[in-house]
Amino acid sequence: MTGQTRADFLKMDQADPLGKCRDRFLLRDGLIYLDGNSLGALPAAVPERVQRAITGEWGKDLISSWNVNRWIDLPQRVGDRIGALVGAAPGQVVAGDSTSVNLFKLLAAALKMVPEGRRVILSDPGNFPTDLYMVQGLRELLGENRCQLRLVEETEITGALDDDVALVMLTHVNFRSGRMHDMRAVTRAVQASGALMLWDLSHSAGALPVDLDGCNADFAVGCGYKYLNGGPGAPAFLYVAARHREQVSQPLSGWMGHASPFVFDIDYTPAAGVGRYLCGTPPVLAMLALETALESCWSGVDMAVVREKSLRLGTLFIDLVEQRCAGHGFSLASPRENALRGSQVSFAHPEGYAIMQALIKADVVGDFRAPNLLRFGFTPLYTRYVDIWDAVDRLALIMEQGSWNRPEFHRRAAVT
Amino acid sequence: MTGQTRADFLKMDQADPLGKCRDRFLLRDGLIYLDGNSLGALPAAVPERVQRAITGEWGKDLISSWNVNRWIDLPQRVGDRIGALVGAAPGQVVAGDSTSVNLFKLLAAALKMVPEGRRVILSDPGNFPTDLYMVQGLRELLGENRCQLRLVEETEITGALDDDVALVMLTHVNFRSGRMHDMRAVTRAVQASGALMLWDLSHSAGALPVDLDGCNADFAVGCGYKYLNGGPGAPAFLYVAARHREQVSQPLSGWMGHASPFVFDIDYTPAAGVGRYLCGTPPVLAMLALETALESCWSGVDMAVVREKSLRLGTLFIDLVEQRCAGHGFSLASPRENALRGSQVSFAHPEGYAIMQALIKADVVGDFRAPNLLRFGFTPLYTRYVDIWDAVDRLALIMEQGSWNRPEFHRRAAVT
Repeated sequence: MTGQTRADFLKMDQADPLGKCRDRFLLRDGLIYLDGNSLGALPAAVPERVQRAITGEWGKDLISSWNVNRWIDLPQRVGDRIGALVGAAPGQVVAGDSTSVNLFKLLAAALKMVPEGRRVILSDPGNFPTDLYMVQGLRELLGENRCQLRLVEETEITGALDDDVALVMLTHVNFRSGRMHDMRAVTRAVQASGALMLWDLSHSAGALPVDLDGCNADFAVGCGYKYLNGGPGAPAFLYVAARHREQVSQPLSGWMGHASPFVFDIDYTPAAGVGRYLCGTPPVLAMLALETALESCWSGVDMAVVREKSLRLGTLFIDLVEQRCAGHGFSLASPRENALRGSQVSFAHPEGYAIMQALIKADVVGDFRAPNLLRFGFTPLYTRYVDIWDAVDRLALIMEQGSWNRPEFHRRAAVT
Repeated sequence: MTGQTRADFLKMDQADPLGKCRDRFLLRDGLIYLDGNSLGALPAAVPERVQRAITGEWGKDLISSWNVNRWIDLPQRVGDRIGALVGAAPGQVVAGDSTSVNLFKLLAAALKMVPEGRRVILSDPGNFPTDLYMVQGLRELLGENRCQLRLVEETEITGALDDDVALVMLTHVNFRSGRMHDMRAVTRAVQASGALMLWDLSHSAGALPVDLDGCNADFAVGCGYKYLNGGPGAPAFLYVAARHREQVSQPLSGWMGHASPFVFDIDYTPAAGVGRYLCGTPPVLAMLALETALESCWSGVDMAVVREKSLRLGTLFIDLVEQRCAGHGFSLASPRENALRGSQVSFAHPEGYAIMQALIKADVVGDFRAPNLLRFGFTPLYTRYVDIWDAVDRLALIMEQGSWNRPEFHRRAAVT
C-alpha cells in the first residue's frame, strides 16, 4: 500500500472496464455515495420513463394500459430480468410486494412441502431483522407445533441441522458485516439433511455473481432498491425453483395469482406458473422504474467483472483505512478474505454514529448500523477508485481534527 | 326525462359546484372516462411531484430522504388523509401494501380477537373475488378448525349471523352491481351477534360519504387507485378502530411495523399505534403519487356534494339509456333506488363485451365485468353532466347501427 497516491487511483479508473457505466446514473458532483446497499443511485433513464408512464400511459391510455402497455406482464417480465442477474432461468422469479411479504409466502409454502414433524425454520441471529420477524409472525399464527424458529450463529448453521428442520433461511451476504455464505456448500448440506433452503439475496442481487439454479436453491427473495437501483421501496422479488413451483400454493392468494383473474371465480385456483406467487395489483409506476433500472444499468455488464472490481474496491478501502486512520479506534468488522466478503466493508467504532454523521456532512455517504458499525457499500457500476481514496482522505481528516465530536453529529435521526 | 336536450346538460355543468374540479385532472379532450372506479384519472399535480421526488429526493438527497424528506412518515401521513375521506379520526389508517395483503393482516388479527369457537368469516359470493381468495388462503393455512368461509347472498347476511361467526367481511359497494350496504345497520347487527365487522371500501372511498368511526366499524380496507386517483397499483389502506388497535398484532410482522425498526432487535415488538399494521419498506414513489392525489383533488370538496352529483349523474344515465336504447336488450343491473346505489351503474346485455369494446372505440370508456355487465363509474370531480348525454348518445348510435357486431370487438384482451 505504502506509496500509493490519489493519482494511482485515478489511473485505476482510467483502466476500469466498468468506468463508463457511471454515466448510466445521475449522481451529484462531489458526492461520494457508498450507500447503494441501502438505496441504489438513480439510473439516468428512470425519470423520463416514469414521466412517460405517468402522463402517457396512466394519463392518456388510462385503464387500457393494462393491455396496450402490457402492465399486466410486469411482475413476470421484471422477474425474469432479475432472474438473469441471479442465475435463475426464466419463469422462476416474479417481482412485487416487499421482501418481507414475499418471505411470508415462501415460509408458509415451504412448511407445507416438508414431512410433518419438520417444523423448525433455522436461521442466524444476525440475519436482517425483518426476516426473523416474518418467521415470528408465522409462528404466532400457526403455533409452535407447526412453526418454530431456531437461531444459531451463522458459522454453526450446518451443524445445527436435524430432522426437525424444515427450512434454512439465510441472507447470503450479512447486512452488518458483509460476510458471505458459500451458497453451493450450504445449500447442499441443508438439502442432504432433508431440509429446504431459502436465500435472501438483498445484499447479493446486482452486487456479485449468484447462481441460484446452479446451486440448486429451493427459494430466494431479494430487494429491488439496493444494488438493483429500482428506487425507494421498489418492488422486491421472489424465486421458486421450477421443480417446486406448482407443488404448493402460498397463503397470500390474491387475485393476481389466480389462474384466470378476470373470470372473477368465487374459488381460488392458483396460476400454473410462478405467477401463483403474486397477490394483489402490482404497483405499476414502481415496477416500471425498476424495469428501467434493470434494462438501462446492466446492458453488456459481466457480473464477474463487477465482482472483481467490487473486491478490489473493498480491499483498497480496508487497506487505506487501516493505514490512514490507524490509532483512531476502528476495527474491521468485515471478513478480510475476499471469498468471504460481499460488496461492502464495515468498521466498528464506539463513536460510529457521530463519525458517520460527520462523514455524511463531508459528502461521503455510508450508513450506520447499530450498535457501532460504519458501513460502506461498493457499487461497481458507479463507485470509482478515486472515490475510495477521497472517502478515506476525508475520514482521516475528520479523525485527525476530531471534528466528528460536535453536538450536531450526535443527534439521532428517525432513520439511521 | 322527455324533452331534455344536450343543452340542458351543459346548463347543469354550468351550475355544478364541482365543475371547476375537473381542472385538477389531466384528461384528453374528447374522452369520456367512466372507468374511474377501475383506475382513477391522473391528477394534474402528480407528474411534477413524482418527477421532483425522483430527480430531487431520490437522485440528490438519496438515502437521507427518509429523514429530510420525511419518507418514513408516509404510511401514516397518507393514511390520515384517507381517513379524513372515510370518517376515521387520525391514527387509525395506514397506507401501504395491496388491498389483498391488508385483508390478510386484518382477517388474521380478527380471528385472534374473538372467543375460540368463532371461526367463520361470513361474506357474500358476489364480493370482489380477491377478498374471498384471501380468506381461502388463510383457511388453507390455518385449517378448517380455525378458519371457515361462509357465503350467503348479500341481502341475507344479517340472517346468517350465529355464534360461529367471527367476522363479517363485506364490500360496501358491490363491484358488479353498485349495490350499497347500509353500513350503520349492518355493523350494528353484526356486532350485536358478537362478531366483528370489516368493510372493504374499494368502491366507496372518495366516491361517497363514509363514516367508519360513526358506524363503529371494527376494520376496513380499501384501494388507492380507484376514486382516490393514486395511480395504477397505488398503495392500498387499512383501518383499525382505535379501541382494537393495540389489542392484537398481525402476522405480517415486518420491520416497518416494529416499535423501533432501526434498533435491529432480534425479536419483533409491534409499534404502539396503527404503524404495527405495516410490513416491509413502503413504495415511496407510489406513496407520494397517492399523497399528491389526495392533497390536490379534494381540497375544499364536500363529500355530501360529491354524493349528490354522483346520484344525479347515475339517475340521468339510467333514464337516458332506458329511453334512448329501449328495445336493444339492456337491463338495469344496479339498484334504481338512490339510497342503495354507489357511484356506478351497470347494465346487463348478452353482448356486453362487444358493445363495451365498440363504446371504448367511440371514446366512451367504461368496463366490462363477466359474464355480461357493462359498468359505468361516475367520478363527480371530473365527470360532467354533458359526458352522460354524450356517452348515451354514442351508445344509442352503436346500437342503432349495430356497429358493435364487428369481429374486432369480440376479440378478448388479457385484462377485460
